[in-house]
Amino acid sequence: MTHQKHIVHYVVEPFQEDLFGCMSWSVLGNLLLRTANFHAHAHGFGLEYVRRTHRAWVLSRLVIDMQRMPESGEHFTITTWVSRVYRQFSDRNYCITSDDGTVLGYATSVWALIDYEKRIPVDGDSLPGGGLRALVVDEVPPIDGQGRVKVSAEQPVRLHRVAYSDMDINGHVNSVRYIDFAIDCIPVPTLAAKRIKRVEMTYAVEAMAGESLSIYAEQDADEAWGVEIRKEAGVVIAKAKLCP
Amino acid sequence: MTHQKHIVHYVVEPFQEDLFGCMSWSVLGNLLLRTANFHAHAHGFGLEYVRRTHRAWVLSRLVIDMQRMPESGEHFTITTWVSRVYRQFSDRNYCITSDDGTVLGYATSVWALIDYEKRIPVDGDSLPGGGLRALVVDEVPPIDGQGRVKVSAEQPVRLHRVAYSDMDINGHVNSVRYIDFAIDCIPVPTLAAKRIKRVEMTYAVEAMAGESLSIYAEQDADEAWGVEIRKEAGVVIAKAKLCP
Repeated sequence: MTHQKHIVHYVVEPFQEDLFGCMSWSVLGNLLLRTANFHAHAHGFGLEYVRRTHRAWVLSRLVIDMQRMPESGEHFTITTWVSRVYRQFSDRNYCITSDDGTVLGYATSVWALIDYEKRIPVDGDSLPGGGLRALVVDEVPPIDGQGRVKVSAEQPVRLHRVAYSDMDINGHVNSVRYIDFAIDCIPVPTLAAKRIKRVEMTYAVEAMAGESLSIYAEQDADEAWGVEIRKEAGVVIAKAKLCP
Repeated sequence: MTHQKHIVHYVVEPFQEDLFGCMSWSVLGNLLLRTANFHAHAHGFGLEYVRRTHRAWVLSRLVIDMQRMPESGEHFTITTWVSRVYRQFSDRNYCITSDDGTVLGYATSVWALIDYEKRIPVDGDSLPGGGLRALVVDEVPPIDGQGRVKVSAEQPVRLHRVAYSDMDINGHVNSVRYIDFAIDCIPVPTLAAKRIKRVEMTYAVEAMAGESLSIYAEQDADEAWGVEIRKEAGVVIAKAKLCP
């Protein structure tokens, strides 16, 4: 079943590090998305194909659980595979491994396939070659499932007006950018004292250029941070849980 | 003299595009810095070496002048060379070329070499093998020099508190991030109607975690945008000029 998994080699390049000398969370997030695309593309239904057929892969949930973030100059691989396909959804997993064989972390994600012209979900089986179903590997990463996030703070800790640098080719805020929005709520000295090891993201609705976002954050009894990113009318766009 | 120039091949990957389907300005900025580092590293004085010897390359000025930004999936090269070395400064140039041979644009930059422990400039000749002087190619890109930026607006158009995602391994705001800060002042519909083709950056002082930045912007008679990024006491951190 090895060919059903897809492995891509990477190295932490200069300018991909955060202030701690480790690969930054947004770079890791982008590489996970990129690896997923290489996998889908190798089987005929990558971004290029789905765009041409008026469809899009939409990220709905993402959990990244790192024992250690790769460091400046470190070589590592990301292995991705799909463990479940159901209606428009697929569960995609990732294992991040250092070139010395150490597992650095895992990630899980839930993707939906949609027709963006008709604004309706599309059954994944309609993709070339039966889509992802033919690639399913019955194996899930040994990390906890996604928890609930409830933020009761009444005042936002950050305000942000959506602009050029937040947006991707689909014309809305890039999924990975919300990881930045969440981590940016935590003061740098707090991050330095206890690094974030696990990020959970839930995506609800899209944010567009010019929208004003209010970002609410609070720490719970376990030192995990809950974050809610809301539009002006209070509509929740995305939620995050950040665990040291 | 060909070996004195350094050429690196790239492709515009998924998730590196902006909302117009072109490579985003910050990705281009990062690739310019990365190409410069490959060049310096190939001659023994890249980031790894200078860090080990308590020195740093500090970007002082940057002009990027694009006839066309490479598009999603497009293969291109960045060629870099140094045209002048004087005291701690070096003038580094770039040519961005599509794989069909079309010149897409040019960039020029001024770098200073500093000792970050003693906080003093370091003569570039002290680098291994005589440093950049041995690599000088007497050739400059056919683009206009950097203009002056004067912003008289009294109210900032954006406020920003420096956080995790803005920072790089040196513990201050990444040089490329200021390009985002500047472009983010322009409303997306304005950018869509007339794309930015040229970006001029001047870097004055560093910004650290937690600092509150005020960003002032205004358009001049030639439709160019002047941007000033200031600290709380009004100290100018960086200036930008953005030309359609």
